[in-house]
Amino acid sequence: MSHFDHKDTICAPATAPGNAAIAVIRVSGREAFSIAERIFIPRKKGLKIMEAPSHLMIFGDVKDAGNTVDEVLLTKFIAPRSYTGDDMVEISCHGSPYIQQQILKLCLDLGARMARPGEFTMRAFMNGRMDLSQAEAVADLIASNSSASHQIAFRQMRGHFSDRIRELRGRLLEFAALIELELDFSEEDVEFADRARLIELLDQIESELAGLQESFTLGNVLKSGIPVAIIGKPNVGKSTLLNAILNEERAIVSDIPGTTRDAIEDTINIRGVAFRFIDTAGLRESRDVIESVGIERTYEKIRQAAIILYMFDISETSIEEITDTIEDFHERLGDTSKRLILIANKIDLMEEIPHHFRELVEWETLFVSAKRKENIHLISDSLLQSVDLAAQEENQSIVTNSRHYEALANTGKAIAAARQGIANGISGDLLAIDLRSALHYLGTITGEVTSDEILGEIFGKFCIGK
Amino acid sequence: MSHFDHKDTICAPATAPGNAAIAVIRVSGREAFSIAERIFIPRKKGLKIMEAPSHLMIFGDVKDAGNTVDEVLLTKFIAPRSYTGDDMVEISCHGSPYIQQQILKLCLDLGARMARPGEFTMRAFMNGRMDLSQAEAVADLIASNSSASHQIAFRQMRGHFSDRIRELRGRLLEFAALIELELDFSEEDVEFADRARLIELLDQIESELAGLQESFTLGNVLKSGIPVAIIGKPNVGKSTLLNAILNEERAIVSDIPGTTRDAIEDTINIRGVAFRFIDTAGLRESRDVIESVGIERTYEKIRQAAIILYMFDISETSIEEITDTIEDFHERLGDTSKRLILIANKIDLMEEIPHHFRELVEWETLFVSAKRKENIHLISDSLLQSVDLAAQEENQSIVTNSRHYEALANTGKAIAAARQGIANGISGDLLAIDLRSALHYLGTITGEVTSDEILGEIFGKFCIGK
Repeated sequence: MSHFDHKDTICAPATAPGNAAIAVIRVSGREAFSIAERIFIPRKKGLKIMEAPSHLMIFGDVKDAGNTVDEVLLTKFIAPRSYTGDDMVEISCHGSPYIQQQILKLCLDLGARMARPGEFTMRAFMNGRMDLSQAEAVADLIASNSSASHQIAFRQMRGHFSDRIRELRGRLLEFAALIELELDFSEEDVEFADRARLIELLDQIESELAGLQESFTLGNVLKSGIPVAIIGKPNVGKSTLLNAILNEERAIVSDIPGTTRDAIEDTINIRGVAFRFIDTAGLRESRDVIESVGIERTYEKIRQAAIILYMFDISETSIEEITDTIEDFHERLGDTSKRLILIANKIDLMEEIPHHFRELVEWETLFVSAKRKENIHLISDSLLQSVDLAAQEENQSIVTNSRHYEALANTGKAIAAARQGIANGISGDLLAIDLRSALHYLGTITGEVTSDEILGEIFGKFCIGK
Repeated sequence: MSHFDHKDTICAPATAPGNAAIAVIRVSGREAFSIAERIFIPRKKGLKIMEAPSHLMIFGDVKDAGNTVDEVLLTKFIAPRSYTGDDMVEISCHGSPYIQQQILKLCLDLGARMARPGEFTMRAFMNGRMDLSQAEAVADLIASNSSASHQIAFRQMRGHFSDRIRELRGRLLEFAALIELELDFSEEDVEFADRARLIELLDQIESELAGLQESFTLGNVLKSGIPVAIIGKPNVGKSTLLNAILNEERAIVSDIPGTTRDAIEDTINIRGVAFRFIDTAGLRESRDVIESVGIERTYEKIRQAAIILYMFDISETSIEEITDTIEDFHERLGDTSKRLILIANKIDLMEEIPHHFRELVEWETLFVSAKRKENIHLISDSLLQSVDLAAQEENQSIVTNSRHYEALANTGKAIAAARQGIANGISGDLLAIDLRSALHYLGTITGEVTSDEILGEIFGKFCIGK
């Protein structure tokens, strides 16, 4: 675990960069309090930082060689009652980048060093405050932008997923120990581990692993937003439609300035679920073009989508064009498992909807006016039907992390090999290898087994100050 | 003071927007604690928010109808020991915009409203925690990006400037009261206010006002950066030079990732003083152009600058061209008070500097190589000489705010009118009008006299959450 030296004292801003009312600087490590004592003068006479209680905000001045850098509130967190589990200090200063820089500089001058991304959480992991999958959930939690992704990350942070993995691992470990024991008595040909019961256990674990692996598809889309491709000719009203959906959802959630705007363009939160809308060029436009690079790109995007909205102008589109487009689409795509929703836009231009359109029953067709905001809720409702929210209502774990998915898949392979081995009557030492391999992969999820490389990769993705 | 209703409970994020390790949400007002009690469950059993002590960070969960929104640290600030002077709560949550939005939504649902920009500081002013000039300094402090602008804002926030204004106003108020008293006894023709001493006082005040008004030029440039125009032909090495200066200064200040980058493009911090570099087109380039719009624009920029760097390629420029350019420049500009520094660049291309260049003694000339970073420190040193830093080393106040400057100027006019009036032997009631006017203008600086309009203008410039 040499990748991060966890004996020295680290510091970093913990709040987002930019001018703001306040900013918070974190200092963690064995010198945190002595650094605080040297740069901070409490206003209250006689108060000594080293003797101050944990978790109390203390008003005072950060001083640099007699000059006041800022009036701040400083809080001590005495180990192990801190985020990292080490002694820690948080300095809540005025939210000026200049002031933050000056305070950090003072800490660095006194021997602290800038924390690497994720290093605070890394220390929390090192100190046993959380396991690896919980640490990863912290990053997911910060990045979450919908009720669904937030819930999943939060539950993972609380350890629901870890508990389940650890439980599986514990049961497997028991058997592995018995098998290893057999090896010690190998000349006596005893069987401490009941093979029938082991097979039963492996069955159970396999089925649980399969469930978890299956949840990954849902987990992944809930985390990053369900990809929805919108196809349709230019001027058919695609961006008007997106705005109409966005406005409807904004009217539902309360209007909080500065916070409702989605971080990612074209991601719209529909009642707690994020949908990622991918605008594509039309499907048929490039038909005449010999080098149809454009159409290939369109299909690439459609292949990434879980749902396809095919939008057309009802006042200008014939039934033939629609059926041709859909045929084209199925032909090119092959995959017919994707959900296709037809959006007949611009109903406001028609006195009534022509009878033959009503007969487009083969496909789910919604008749809307994006401009007049008519029937937009039908689209939101329809999109939400794609999400099996039942899955997360239960106490079931959902896998959202591709590292976990891979570990689960590898565990599954080792378990399958062990089962196969038992069926073939392989020797205990070979069986032990498969079981150890399964234990290893399960252990990487929670961090019972880990390496510098894994840690570097995981915590390198964090933001500074976390 | 109806512009801001200060009886209700306000909330807002206090940290900068964006994903980060933590974010802080502020709630202030009479319902702050009861809202906290309803959304927050401390982990420690039996702990009651309403009974918790001030300034203690409490670990627990923000709950929304049973669902946990986040694990947070909540701090109570019991009035008047808070930033606003009202009961206040700070919630330190995970730095996800989604979580912040959810927590704010809970507060809004329980009757709080989103704070307007500057409203927390506005309440601090209303509650007498700071005067108006100190409140304005808070915004300046957050925006400060150099040691100089930080020092000035910090001193103003601490009340140095206010004290001085209040002292002047107090002395004037004493005399005004005596004059008003005379009016009550006007039929008896008494003089409570000694006219000779009043004149003496007005003299003193006038000279102090003049000093403060004078400091505005320095204060203003220290606050927003000293404007430096760089003139010179294209490819003379202007941006290479700026980079060289920037690199040199960065090497001096310690390298803190994410914090050293200047907020404003082309503003370079030279040992604590911000210089704002304005690139201009050359001076002579457009000479042949009949409609010399370009050259007029160049001169406009030069007129805004305090220092002019005229940069030329020593390997390609004749002495005649240089002197012609400078002549041109003086002719067009009229004003010769601006400091002109000649930068002879590309000395690396010369074996030695031609003797005649050394005779450019009439102007300050620096021989540098921007490319090879030779003699760059000469430019930094030279620029710093323009700043009379002595002025701020003393306990002297520096005016940086144009609202204050205007108020000082108006006070000055009223004082001058009063003095003139005394000289002309005007009656006490007319004199009283002038004195009242002077008192009024001085009072607007610290907020002893104020109006909704002024408050709206001042606090409207703040960021949300301050």
